[in-house]
Amino acid sequence: MNHKIVSYMVGRILQIEAALLLLPCLISLIYTEWHSSLALLASALIAFVIGCVCTHLLGKNDKMIFAKEGFAIVALAWISMSLVGALPFYISREIPKFVDAFFETVSGFTTTGASILTNVEKMSRGLLFWRSFTHWIGGMGVLVFVMAIFPQESGRSIHIMRAEMPGPSVGKLVPRIRTTAKLLYIIYIVMTVVQIVLMLFGGMPLFASVLHAFGTAGTGGFGILNDSIASYSPYLQWVIAIFMLLFGINFNLYYLFLIKHFRAALKSTELWVYLGIVAVSTTIITFNIYNTFNTFSDAVRTSFFQVSSIMTTTGFATADFNLWPSLSKTILLTLMFIGSCAGSTGGGIKVSRIIIVMKTIFRDIKRMLHPRSVGSVKFEGKILDLHTTNGVSVYFAIYFILFFIILLLISFGSAFDIETNFSAAAACFNNIGPGLGAVGPTSNFAAYTGFSKIVLSFAMLLGRLEIFPILLIFTPIFWKKK
Amino acid sequence: MNHKIVSYMVGRILQIEAALLLLPCLISLIYTEWHSSLALLASALIAFVIGCVCTHLLGKNDKMIFAKEGFAIVALAWISMSLVGALPFYISREIPKFVDAFFETVSGFTTTGASILTNVEKMSRGLLFWRSFTHWIGGMGVLVFVMAIFPQESGRSIHIMRAEMPGPSVGKLVPRIRTTAKLLYIIYIVMTVVQIVLMLFGGMPLFASVLHAFGTAGTGGFGILNDSIASYSPYLQWVIAIFMLLFGINFNLYYLFLIKHFRAALKSTELWVYLGIVAVSTTIITFNIYNTFNTFSDAVRTSFFQVSSIMTTTGFATADFNLWPSLSKTILLTLMFIGSCAGSTGGGIKVSRIIIVMKTIFRDIKRMLHPRSVGSVKFEGKILDLHTTNGVSVYFAIYFILFFIILLLISFGSAFDIETNFSAAAACFNNIGPGLGAVGPTSNFAAYTGFSKIVLSFAMLLGRLEIFPILLIFTPIFWKKK
Repeated sequence: MNHKIVSYMVGRILQIEAALLLLPCLISLIYTEWHSSLALLASALIAFVIGCVCTHLLGKNDKMIFAKEGFAIVALAWISMSLVGALPFYISREIPKFVDAFFETVSGFTTTGASILTNVEKMSRGLLFWRSFTHWIGGMGVLVFVMAIFPQESGRSIHIMRAEMPGPSVGKLVPRIRTTAKLLYIIYIVMTVVQIVLMLFGGMPLFASVLHAFGTAGTGGFGILNDSIASYSPYLQWVIAIFMLLFGINFNLYYLFLIKHFRAALKSTELWVYLGIVAVSTTIITFNIYNTFNTFSDAVRTSFFQVSSIMTTTGFATADFNLWPSLSKTILLTLMFIGSCAGSTGGGIKVSRIIIVMKTIFRDIKRMLHPRSVGSVKFEGKILDLHTTNGVSVYFAIYFILFFIILLLISFGSAFDIETNFSAAAACFNNIGPGLGAVGPTSNFAAYTGFSKIVLSFAMLLGRLEIFPILLIFTPIFWKKK
Repeated sequence: MNHKIVSYMVGRILQIEAALLLLPCLISLIYTEWHSSLALLASALIAFVIGCVCTHLLGKNDKMIFAKEGFAIVALAWISMSLVGALPFYISREIPKFVDAFFETVSGFTTTGASILTNVEKMSRGLLFWRSFTHWIGGMGVLVFVMAIFPQESGRSIHIMRAEMPGPSVGKLVPRIRTTAKLLYIIYIVMTVVQIVLMLFGGMPLFASVLHAFGTAGTGGFGILNDSIASYSPYLQWVIAIFMLLFGINFNLYYLFLIKHFRAALKSTELWVYLGIVAVSTTIITFNIYNTFNTFSDAVRTSFFQVSSIMTTTGFATADFNLWPSLSKTILLTLMFIGSCAGSTGGGIKVSRIIIVMKTIFRDIKRMLHPRSVGSVKFEGKILDLHTTNGVSVYFAIYFILFFIILLLISFGSAFDIETNFSAAAACFNNIGPGLGAVGPTSNFAAYTGFSKIVLSFAMLLGRLEIFPILLIFTPIFWKKK
């Protein structure tokens, strides 16, 4: 392991975080919130100092980044980022316990949106901004951001990108990694701005529009009102629902649209399966909950909003789906695990993995019946090699084993029923936010023990970074020198 | 597909079932239950006639059994056996609806033990006997039985055995398949008899001893009292708990003991992981439920009994674990999925699959860090080929996908909460019996809709036959002629 480059990169990230913290600090000053602006400024300074220590004292910029270093950089960068990002909440005493502040920040960066706040409306503007801003930063990945702006970091940085980007494999948009990272961020910024404009048009104030766009773009789900999105107009609910759906799509497809390869973009299997699941789920839930609504359009909108929110792993809510019939709740629980498309800002297992594993199963069945047939798995027009199909199957296995370990760990000392614990583990591991039962959309995670909150924080990191970077740092072979 | 041999073998099975039905018929006569003895006799006749039609008119015994035919024989034999086995309950009107009788019989043969009976104590002796006898028949596998007694069926019957025996691969006890099948049955019978004797010794009446031994040996769980095993003495509870544990162990190990290869038997990784999981789970649950018991030994016995019962997928109960704290319930829910050892009469994913998949994950992590390392997965002293390790990973994927499909299907029209539906799906798919919530150990499956009962019946068959035989008969490629 090349400790120096790891330390250097982590330091760099903290320096960038220091710069990013100045934005909410500015917002705080505009709203004359002296207390929180000071907390944000202090945190920025601490981030900068630690960043400099890591970069200059320990670090040396040599470019030996292999797979191992890639994983280490991503895992440690995300953990340090969250530790430092929790400081403003803690220093300002707006979140008195550090473990709570850490949980809230991890939930932000990993775009989960699970909260320990019992009353979000009494938070200061500056910290509300920082809280939603972490969604936006975490959505596209902070290391992708580094690669987009610093040319010198690009030596073998494919390993970093691979470890941070969701999905079974990084699609190569363009051969040069820096250009890829830049392109992704441009698409991301443009879509966010379009959403803000559309929400302003619907009468939402600027501050609320920006924060909700952050929550949507990162598929995070932190809101600014206690009832999430429920009190906004149907128009605004439609805008958010549709943009959640859009941010759950593979960004490669937007790139293809950008260069006018419409046909190639529309041929994506993953896209149609994703939209198909949303359509079927919305239809079933609409009929299942129809009798509790006055009009059909209310039922459709509410159903579509929740399906889009859960499937994309955002977690905004316009209804307390915890009160819905079992069928609707079970569909939402299933969508939690499926998740969004690979290469989007969403979490979960990802639609493409589900498709690949289904095709692998079908191939294996064929082989069982005709042992001499070879059979191959084709996805998005390409024949997948054994390495990829096996990797996806193993991902399923590790996914469910880890899920049960998380569930067992949070059951220790938990006063909650199984539905609550189960959905809490699912909501954190899949980066959704609200679950069912006592962690439903009208509740929060405040009542969990400190130990459970730490476990759930790591569950969110495992989910966002797709297991391996975080899992690796817990293995002894990882830390062994050569 | 060679339809003739499939039809021939299914016919053979039904003829054997006809003979087996005469045993409960005899019991009925001894207890002068004319009504149920007539129902059993009529069912035996029907089974025999259908069996003869399949064997002589439609089928033919040729030796062309390939993988495809092996799967078809096993799947169709188990379904026909369950349809015919349900007749005595239905004809006698002791279970008035056929779908209920079918559910109960599938639950019997698959050694699940999930019941739709609200009052088992009012059943006639003959039918109670038949109900528990199905556990004993299904435990070791009825086709294994055929191979043990009919020499002529042995042409390539390894394909049948492979499809019916639980676990990632059939261990070859001895090269000759017929000898293997006989040996398995001898061990099975001897262990059952020993258990009966030990229970008689503890004061349990003969009829009850035999039926409980059937339920234990098959890891089934059908009892004869409404409170399952709770009202029996601590001695009897210990006997049953220990024998459940013994029947959850790979029968290959008993064979090794029999030929005095003690060291080889005791070197089994699966055995120690299995016993380790039982020990750890028992310890945690004991401390978790301790305060509700008068003595420590009561807490240990109750905890051990439930752990052994759920882990081996039997489903007997001495306590209403549905009232236990979440931690204990979550441990039991996790054990439901893990299941017993491969090559035992129990269900679930199986301990050996968990071990293999964990080792595969570890190998893949190593490969990620050192891309040039080859790495291999070793289990029980042998290096596993890629085919086996990939097969196990894919099994996990298909297992959880099917689980969610079953869960979604039974949620349609279900009035139950998520905990109930989730545990009902888990309890049936893993062949356990009781779940949590409204299908907990003091309740039953009667309130589910007919559709849900059929889905759950197929879930039990999928679980018992380890997915593929049942899944295959639902694919079009399976029915295609060459």
